[in-house]
Amino acid sequence: MSDQSSANYPADVMKKLISLCKQRGFVFQSSEIYGGLKSAYDYGPLGAELKRNLMAEWWRDMVHSRDNVVGIDASIIMHPQVWRSSGHAAGFADPLVDCLVSKERFRADKAPRPAVGAELPITCPDKGVAKDWAEQIEKRFGVALERDGNILSGLKAVSATEFGFVPKGAAAPAQVWPWRGYVEPTFGSPFLGDERQFNLMFRTALGSVDPMNEVAAELARLTAEPDLAAAVKSRFGRAADEGALKTAIESGDRGRILRAAIELLTAPAMAYLRPETAQAMFVQFKNVLESSGQKPPFGIAQMGKSFRNEITVEHFIFRSCEFEQMEMEFFCEPGTQKEWMQYWKDQRMQWWKRYANHPERFAFRQHAKDELAHYADDCYDVDFEYPWGYGELEGIASRTDYDLKQHEKNSGVKLRYTDQEKADPATGKKPWQYTPYVIEPAAGATRGVLVYLLDAYHEEERTTAAGEKEVRTVLKLHPRLAPIKVAVLPLVKKDGMPEKADAIAALFRARGILAKVDEKASIGKRYAKHDEIGTPWAITVDGQTLEDGTVTLRDRDTTEQVRVAVDAVVDLIARKLQA
Amino acid sequence: MSDQSSANYPADVMKKLISLCKQRGFVFQSSEIYGGLKSAYDYGPLGAELKRNLMAEWWRDMVHSRDNVVGIDASIIMHPQVWRSSGHAAGFADPLVDCLVSKERFRADKAPRPAVGAELPITCPDKGVAKDWAEQIEKRFGVALERDGNILSGLKAVSATEFGFVPKGAAAPAQVWPWRGYVEPTFGSPFLGDERQFNLMFRTALGSVDPMNEVAAELARLTAEPDLAAAVKSRFGRAADEGALKTAIESGDRGRILRAAIELLTAPAMAYLRPETAQAMFVQFKNVLESSGQKPPFGIAQMGKSFRNEITVEHFIFRSCEFEQMEMEFFCEPGTQKEWMQYWKDQRMQWWKRYANHPERFAFRQHAKDELAHYADDCYDVDFEYPWGYGELEGIASRTDYDLKQHEKNSGVKLRYTDQEKADPATGKKPWQYTPYVIEPAAGATRGVLVYLLDAYHEEERTTAAGEKEVRTVLKLHPRLAPIKVAVLPLVKKDGMPEKADAIAALFRARGILAKVDEKASIGKRYAKHDEIGTPWAITVDGQTLEDGTVTLRDRDTTEQVRVAVDAVVDLIARKLQA
Repeated sequence: MSDQSSANYPADVMKKLISLCKQRGFVFQSSEIYGGLKSAYDYGPLGAELKRNLMAEWWRDMVHSRDNVVGIDASIIMHPQVWRSSGHAAGFADPLVDCLVSKERFRADKAPRPAVGAELPITCPDKGVAKDWAEQIEKRFGVALERDGNILSGLKAVSATEFGFVPKGAAAPAQVWPWRGYVEPTFGSPFLGDERQFNLMFRTALGSVDPMNEVAAELARLTAEPDLAAAVKSRFGRAADEGALKTAIESGDRGRILRAAIELLTAPAMAYLRPETAQAMFVQFKNVLESSGQKPPFGIAQMGKSFRNEITVEHFIFRSCEFEQMEMEFFCEPGTQKEWMQYWKDQRMQWWKRYANHPERFAFRQHAKDELAHYADDCYDVDFEYPWGYGELEGIASRTDYDLKQHEKNSGVKLRYTDQEKADPATGKKPWQYTPYVIEPAAGATRGVLVYLLDAYHEEERTTAAGEKEVRTVLKLHPRLAPIKVAVLPLVKKDGMPEKADAIAALFRARGILAKVDEKASIGKRYAKHDEIGTPWAITVDGQTLEDGTVTLRDRDTTEQVRVAVDAVVDLIARKLQA
Repeated sequence: MSDQSSANYPADVMKKLISLCKQRGFVFQSSEIYGGLKSAYDYGPLGAELKRNLMAEWWRDMVHSRDNVVGIDASIIMHPQVWRSSGHAAGFADPLVDCLVSKERFRADKAPRPAVGAELPITCPDKGVAKDWAEQIEKRFGVALERDGNILSGLKAVSATEFGFVPKGAAAPAQVWPWRGYVEPTFGSPFLGDERQFNLMFRTALGSVDPMNEVAAELARLTAEPDLAAAVKSRFGRAADEGALKTAIESGDRGRILRAAIELLTAPAMAYLRPETAQAMFVQFKNVLESSGQKPPFGIAQMGKSFRNEITVEHFIFRSCEFEQMEMEFFCEPGTQKEWMQYWKDQRMQWWKRYANHPERFAFRQHAKDELAHYADDCYDVDFEYPWGYGELEGIASRTDYDLKQHEKNSGVKLRYTDQEKADPATGKKPWQYTPYVIEPAAGATRGVLVYLLDAYHEEERTTAAGEKEVRTVLKLHPRLAPIKVAVLPLVKKDGMPEKADAIAALFRARGILAKVDEKASIGKRYAKHDEIGTPWAITVDGQTLEDGTVTLRDRDTTEQVRVAVDAVVDLIARKLQA
């Protein structure tokens, strides 16, 4: 964790910002008239523009300005096998467990179950890893296991409920921990996290017939039998001999048996809403490689909606069930991932700071080894200092070749690159066919909107001409992010000023710059409104405009006004926007 | 239906286009490595740009260039009540029926059931409608009913399976039709469509706990009771006395009882993926009205994904389950809807034709009265002549005040506009509070991509310098839609030409124009590739460039090349893109 910077938010900034967002049309509660949904937010007229602008900036920087990154736009509902390969899907009733040492996630019901009294050696991938893991275990559990090559020993299943560390030659354990009765399947570790249902993904059903009709008819038939277990066994055949149904039948619990039966009956139509945009880049790797003429190092980028059934939704749009992402998978030669990690860390941090008034609020946080996903060999978060403390804004992960290899294994389709120019390091012969390593800068677009709103929100005390103190609220949004770039304000609604304002706005629009004419209320109120919604420039059309073709140009941040020729003002602002 | 224009597509155009889309990276099958999903497509590097450009053009024309239209970006998962109000949701087991005369959709299980022998008068809304309906019935069923004011009579339930037309004074029916045992509830018509399950919407469940676990436990308990119906009645109380559960219990069918029980148990968590973007504009009407300072006539626009569980997916991206829409609801004063319909028809048709090589392929089709949704008072489709014939591209519907009134009724929140300046026509007094009428231009973005790909696809026979005939395939995409605007091609990969090409591409990017450097293959092959992907301009950097700072600029459609100064070429193309 980086040192806390002194963020200096105005008092109650979240409350004020949420109120401003609703009043001015940035963000509304979803389905508010029906009491609202907590899972999502709607972006109003200004919020929709702000989000569009932010995402357009990302696309411009990540895709359009690079010859080695291309974009895709894939479907939200993908083949269910995608999520089995990626590790996101798991049987509904499969209790999943994370090994605290190896970080592998596995199904508890399929894990090896050593007998009471058995030794519990941990078989590490190699000697180096054995050293790492021994250190981790010592740090976390306060026990120094014996290490011989890649084997860590000294652990024993001492009773039905405890395993312990039994030093060589000792009769009784020196230390004990709760024993789950099973170990992690690949390496044998008994140091395990809690069992839990893994239901992060929203489920839906594909197909035009409601699968529940068939399910109900089957359940009616099965439950009418005198022996439910026998009826289910006969209905499902081999499927009853494995997985959740087998466990359920063994338990004799009617509810669990029915639950497992429902799962098997609905499985053929089951589909998921994607919990991340990233997997499409792996699944379409081959199509993109073949159609685009790219070769590693190159990236595939995507922006779009993702869905996670979050247990806690919090902090306004910070964490919601429906959200938007901006992700890129950068495919590189094995062995080059460290340098690309450094490159993308730099690029991404520069990008976030480019639009910020308070660049000091952004900080890197490297994931500790015991926090990394099991397939990742490094990961940095771009953290932002929110009013409630530091939190994630983007994750930049070194995902190794895990995803491509998983999809290759499960699809049978080769997801590799053949470099005709290079020799395979293993054989010394050309060509070199390899599975690329991946660096993934994965940013939250929805969070980005919140971050720049917080960054932009300023309150300024000032003294009016009448000598009174007042607070000016101003959103100092970067001009490229601001929803409206130019407010064109006729001083009065007559004498041809509105028509002149329309004509000026049209000049901006022709250049692709969003200008809006605003005729309502006093000029002071209109300035205040456009300060509050972050419009960087206001042009006022007055009597003099009609005489000499000049307008006043007001700067949102300084509130200074200068008189400029109408003919020059569009070019002036176009140049400022390009800067 | 408009007259068929002679579309003159090349032979096998769909096959060739689909192949080009995959080879060049416009459109891939979703999850292709896993055998593919039929419900959706993925947009590759070029397709993602094309779709982005098309949608950006729509947004520019509909939102940015109009002071009276604002955009929103709402969530895909909305409150379930939204879809009950809109008429999209209905109980899973409610057999829904469309009345062939009034076009009302209703629940068969709640409809009035006249006894055998009863008269079946149709009570029309007024005399004018009675005349219309009588004509429709005569045309469609070949029978002239007796008409008295707003009542059509002569129909009778003649047996348990037939109803008939019994002329005044006659003993036996002159003509009979199958009798369903019930009539449409509001007007009493027995002319009905088929009963069907209405499951257009994708369902999902909100909440972090899988509702199926609880459902299975409850079903286990209920099905263990000797009398399922009694157990269910006791569990659900009053809910067992109405709707699908009541019907199911009466039927005695265990499957139907369980199906209804599952529905009630899962209802609290049930949510839907939106089948259209439109409803958010009605649901957020009040928030937008209050925050934006707009007043009727004004519009709210939205683009984004929608989901429909289509029974038939067909013609590539023409009809898929996951698709993208560009919709706008235009709120206007009651009584002005006809003129606004005319306005938006003109606007939308002009817009589609603006980007087309073959404007004659677009045509309006007015919906016949018996084809209109029950709430609509007029509707026009913008049809396009696809290779398989005319089909819908956009619908422009006059939706009356139906949607706002439905949401007002069901939410209890007033969705009206108060015009302080105008007198209420009913009372003659100011102000006038009214529910706005709505004109809805609702376009398919995904279909738009297909339409412009088909419009752009050309094959040209030409004779090579060597005297051989060859076919040039060229996508004549409008420059504003083209994925890449400028290909920058170093003639050879040496002598500083690649560096010069990079520098030229950077000049374009700084102006927001997508330029890509392409160094691979011969210059002829590179031209052919960029013709095929629709790049309007190719700039070649050659020996002379390094000497005098000029490049050749090639036009995709004419293939003509002119020599221009590097300094001038960016401005030249920027101007062409603004045209």
